[in-house]
Amino acid sequence: MATLRVPDVVPSPTQDCERLKKAFKGLGTDEEGVIWILGHRNASQRRKIREIYQQLYNESLMDRLNSELSGHFRKAVILWTLDPPERDAKLANEALNKKKKGVDHLTVIIEIACASSPNHLMAVRQAYCSLFHCSLEEDITANVTLPLRKLLLGLVSSYRYERELVDTNLADSEAALLYDAIKKKYLDHDDVVWILSTRNVFQLKATFQCYKQKYGNSIDQDIKRSGTSDLESILRMVICCLDTPEKHFAEVIRNSVIGLGTDEDSLTRAIVTRAEIDMMKIKGEYLNMYQSSLDNAVSDDTSGDYKNILVTLLGKRF
Amino acid sequence: MATLRVPDVVPSPTQDCERLKKAFKGLGTDEEGVIWILGHRNASQRRKIREIYQQLYNESLMDRLNSELSGHFRKAVILWTLDPPERDAKLANEALNKKKKGVDHLTVIIEIACASSPNHLMAVRQAYCSLFHCSLEEDITANVTLPLRKLLLGLVSSYRYERELVDTNLADSEAALLYDAIKKKYLDHDDVVWILSTRNVFQLKATFQCYKQKYGNSIDQDIKRSGTSDLESILRMVICCLDTPEKHFAEVIRNSVIGLGTDEDSLTRAIVTRAEIDMMKIKGEYLNMYQSSLDNAVSDDTSGDYKNILVTLLGKRF
Repeated sequence: MATLRVPDVVPSPTQDCERLKKAFKGLGTDEEGVIWILGHRNASQRRKIREIYQQLYNESLMDRLNSELSGHFRKAVILWTLDPPERDAKLANEALNKKKKGVDHLTVIIEIACASSPNHLMAVRQAYCSLFHCSLEEDITANVTLPLRKLLLGLVSSYRYERELVDTNLADSEAALLYDAIKKKYLDHDDVVWILSTRNVFQLKATFQCYKQKYGNSIDQDIKRSGTSDLESILRMVICCLDTPEKHFAEVIRNSVIGLGTDEDSLTRAIVTRAEIDMMKIKGEYLNMYQSSLDNAVSDDTSGDYKNILVTLLGKRF
Repeated sequence: MATLRVPDVVPSPTQDCERLKKAFKGLGTDEEGVIWILGHRNASQRRKIREIYQQLYNESLMDRLNSELSGHFRKAVILWTLDPPERDAKLANEALNKKKKGVDHLTVIIEIACASSPNHLMAVRQAYCSLFHCSLEEDITANVTLPLRKLLLGLVSSYRYERELVDTNLADSEAALLYDAIKKKYLDHDDVVWILSTRNVFQLKATFQCYKQKYGNSIDQDIKRSGTSDLESILRMVICCLDTPEKHFAEVIRNSVIGLGTDEDSLTRAIVTRAEIDMMKIKGEYLNMYQSSLDNAVSDDTSGDYKNILVTLLGKRF
């Protein structure tokens, strides 16, 4: 369930554009006005606003937001205002071009491939080609080394069946295949990649359950025990995103606010990408996992306009 | 270029539906009427006719065609009238359920994956999930054995960049990778599958050209020389569909009419799937390859209503 709150009576896109234009007028920007409008519109309403804004003022709303706003607030508003597939294509591209060590920056690609709908993933691949003159798969190959590359390529190419259909015999036999691969520390085995990137999520949940019943430990525990390289950590993230995406995002938010300083990029990404999908569930999971409120954690760790847009998307300002 | 001929002034979908209904009336069917209408409408016009027919008469046009027509004529009209992604999903499903020996029946899957637009391939995968309660990838795995399975899975999961963008250095290095794999008879190497299922077709054409320049033989000749198993024959078909789909379809049509008897399934599939895409080019290639006319070959080998629908789609009856 989403936390985004849209008013019962939504102004016309033209009215919204006129108010936005007013918020941009003169020196300085009325940030509250921007949040008030865009922070309470869903993806198709925001698309309409972008189109009408272009028609009315012959300028791109995205360019204008870019020049009017700044800092983490700007990044949050821009990611929120973009069409979701385009937003995710840009996040994926940014991640692939980071050339960072480790694998944390690849998290967003796992999220797109494993915690999104199959149609959304297809739309992201289409947007990626339109924006970056090559396919997502080509950029993954150019920027990620084996064996991670193989797993990521499988995952982003997937188009899973979407309805709830579970074959318990299959769950049993594929749990055995996964167990065998983990025991042999052969985590990038073709079967593993194929199962995780092809089976529907209901089937996979059944397979993971079956794994625990048959072998005692959860698949996550067994992978954790089998090693601590990048492949293990990515594989555990993949399984979490497929099985319980709300847990994954609760963790992302927790890690971004805990300790000194804030990881604004991760915090923004998690809230912006899930506010229209399952943020209510993520809040529940957060409370469960950390015995504290996600809303408070975000409020306490941020400030100013940046805090206001996040808290708005979390459904706490209306 | 297409051979389908649509009249300058197209009747409204309602008029078309009324004429179709009239053609179905009473004992027997006015097959000429059916061909006259459906054989001169493009995919979006046919979709509109299907929708309006359902609204007007509260029955499915597809069901009605199925009960009114018979034999190869029926199959051709039905495949033609279906939405192209749905048609290809059905053809792929039929092929995978044939449980035939050899690989000829898998040709249609190669055609969908390698001789269609990236967006069409995505639409076929979506249609497949809607129609058959599992993904195309799951059915390939269940019905095709390794090493073919691996190649087919890569190909059907692809979403290639569509515009003309060629990197000659890349063409050179990937030609070398392909050459190496063929020399080692390691035709299902990850690199081979990845290159063929990820690179855009312009890049691949450049790679195949580069291959010939550097190593003397065409890649097709080298694969042919390296063995005669199913994998070699499928791989040659893949390369032909990517490089020169018109050659592939000219061959399919030639093989379906040559000798005693006709392979109507292949003939129908080739004409129905390409009449709106590149049948003009296929005719040119046919003439080139066999010094005879494709139109004549089809006319000479078929008869009756079946002949009439094919010849109509080939643009020879108007």
